[in-house]
Amino acid sequence: KKITLLPGDGVGKEIMESARVVLNTIASEYDHRFSFREHAIGGEAIDQYGTPLPEDTIQACEDSDAVLLGAVGGPKWDGNPPHLRPEKGLLGIRKKLGLFANLRPVQGFSSLLHASPLKEEVINGSDILIIRELTGGLYFGRPSERRNNGEEVVDTLAYSRHEMERIIEKGFQSAQIRSKRLTSVDKANVLESSRMWREVVGEKAKDYPDVEVEHLLVDAAAMKLITEPNRFDVIVTENLFGDILSDEASVLTGSLGMLPSASIRTDGVGLYEPVHGSAPDIAGKGIANPLGMILSVALMLRHSFQMEEEAAEIEKAVNECLEQGYHTGDLDIKDGKKVGTKEVTEAVIENLT
Amino acid sequence: KKITLLPGDGVGKEIMESARVVLNTIASEYDHRFSFREHAIGGEAIDQYGTPLPEDTIQACEDSDAVLLGAVGGPKWDGNPPHLRPEKGLLGIRKKLGLFANLRPVQGFSSLLHASPLKEEVINGSDILIIRELTGGLYFGRPSERRNNGEEVVDTLAYSRHEMERIIEKGFQSAQIRSKRLTSVDKANVLESSRMWREVVGEKAKDYPDVEVEHLLVDAAAMKLITEPNRFDVIVTENLFGDILSDEASVLTGSLGMLPSASIRTDGVGLYEPVHGSAPDIAGKGIANPLGMILSVALMLRHSFQMEEEAAEIEKAVNECLEQGYHTGDLDIKDGKKVGTKEVTEAVIENLT
Ligand SMILES: CC(C)[C@H](C(=O)O)[C@@H](O)C(=O)O
Ligand SMILES: CC(C)[C@H](C(=O)O)[C@@H](O)C(=O)O
Repeated sequence: KKITLLPGDGVGKEIMESARVVLNTIASEYDHRFSFREHAIGGEAIDQYGTPLPEDTIQACEDSDAVLLGAVGGPKWDGNPPHLRPEKGLLGIRKKLGLFANLRPVQGFSSLLHASPLKEEVINGSDILIIRELTGGLYFGRPSERRNNGEEVVDTLAYSRHEMERIIEKGFQSAQIRSKRLTSVDKANVLESSRMWREVVGEKAKDYPDVEVEHLLVDAAAMKLITEPNRFDVIVTENLFGDILSDEASVLTGSLGMLPSASIRTDGVGLYEPVHGSAPDIAGKGIANPLGMILSVALMLRHSFQMEEEAAEIEKAVNECLEQGYHTGDLDIKDGKKVGTKEVTEAVIENLT
Repeated sequence: KKITLLPGDGVGKEIMESARVVLNTIASEYDHRFSFREHAIGGEAIDQYGTPLPEDTIQACEDSDAVLLGAVGGPKWDGNPPHLRPEKGLLGIRKKLGLFANLRPVQGFSSLLHASPLKEEVINGSDILIIRELTGGLYFGRPSERRNNGEEVVDTLAYSRHEMERIIEKGFQSAQIRSKRLTSVDKANVLESSRMWREVVGEKAKDYPDVEVEHLLVDAAAMKLITEPNRFDVIVTENLFGDILSDEASVLTGSLGMLPSASIRTDGVGLYEPVHGSAPDIAGKGIANPLGMILSVALMLRHSFQMEEEAAEIEKAVNECLEQGYHTGDLDIKDGKKVGTKEVTEAVIENLT
């Protein structure tokens, strides 16, 4: 299996090292072969090659079975013009690879739930999978420009029926292997694209009679994620709504540093990255939390390589690591041992072998 | 002062009655004259006149100093085509009157804060004013249509510089009379309209050197509202982001039924309504919470009539009503007295006289 590693900026390098070690352990325990190639993306690529997404990187990714990404961005490039922003690398590679489905599982860890901003009785038992469309909507619609001498501006929210169908199908399929409840989020009382989205959900629903479907307006969804997070199973929505809601959901459990994400397409190729950002303030100090990255490796094994057992093994090892009290400074475990990136990774490896 | 009353649907009628009684009390206590005219909007208007926003209603509103709205919508009209939806009445009257600034104060009441989904130490001390642009963006941009035989769809996010300037100025002015901190929310790493928005904020900032400005991406704002609600003072943002964030913020204090809102323009004319909806499930039972409506009356006195003293008097009376334990069933007060709409209104009146 060919895996492209894109460490990117900030803490990306450190946590990518953890991913590599974990994969090597899985390789030797299960007799797999993973080959790694490292490439530049984001700010690092801007500095080295003058572009956030070099051709080389694109080619390596296109030629891989899966991609692991650390993080992109940092204050160094904040003043850059739009096409020289680190994020453009991330947006570009998603689009180039046709990764249309962003999966963001949100699940608490019992030893960490006390750090949630929500009351325990509210957050307890939540287990949400947010599925965000990733290649359409306001992110890529044209025109996106100033007009009339800079007096006016437009962006365009554009979708094709095909783009809606494939992500909505992914939503139904995911609900089917979970608790069979799908929440479709839109703004159908205002947007024509949302009305079409709702129609497509209605059509697809016929193919999944065992899945219970509900429609929520995006404003209502933003409320209910907070008041009743455990009412949700799978949420499916368009690109920008998904961006907002999945970030909102990511703080509910109080341990953002633990959350993985997957961006996939139909044939199984995918890009996997932790939800947390590049954290430039702690970069290079060896104290970044590697667990979101390690859990992203588990998602890769599951979704791109159909290695369910190996994925579950990693998730179990991460859980045990926490139970044993090992954690980085972003987390807080009662009577735990606050250690660095390396030690946490070693604790996971211990539990894997 | 001429006030148009638009009770609308569901509990709208009941709570509008409370607004009327409170205004009559203020009139006699302070020797003001308020004249009321009631008109139809929303579902009720669809049933009576075949349109959610009759000409009569528009004219009455245009000829008034302020408008009070109860709520619109209900399952009865959910299947209607877009132009016959109750919400169109609300969107239409905002647009017709040119009400470009939606003010959504979010503040907790100490006797109710225990019902917040957030931990007390997280929500405590929060006092946020969200200012949402109300006449531009994806809500009104054209084209908004299917294309290519229904295979594609677009909506348009459109803004003029003028629309940005006036709402951003409102943001700065509001921050200036509060804690002098303004958070501007956009998605400048993706949208051209957001990049222009950020520029306009930068230009206007020069006119308000005493206000501290910060820029947040909408996804980050959705997170921080939950993790650190008390870091915010005034938030200013475009229409759809404001819709999502203000609804998200409205559940933080645990007493949605208490929240008022104002939609205003530069000359002081405004439309005032509670944040909660038409609550069709409890309509007609006399148990709806009138306090969000009554606090909206206070906002009207403050923003449209410059009656600061009277507004503060109402807010004090509402607070006392809660301190005395009177509340409707949507709230929960320790050792409180659960009563109906009428009794809560009477308790407020008692405290006013
Ligand atoms: C960096 C940014 C463009 C990106 C997005 O909005 O998609 C990020 O917020 C994300 O969710 O991965
Ligand atoms: C009813 C709907 C169109 C409206 C909006 O999105 O503006 C509502 O959600 C609001 O916030 O007042």
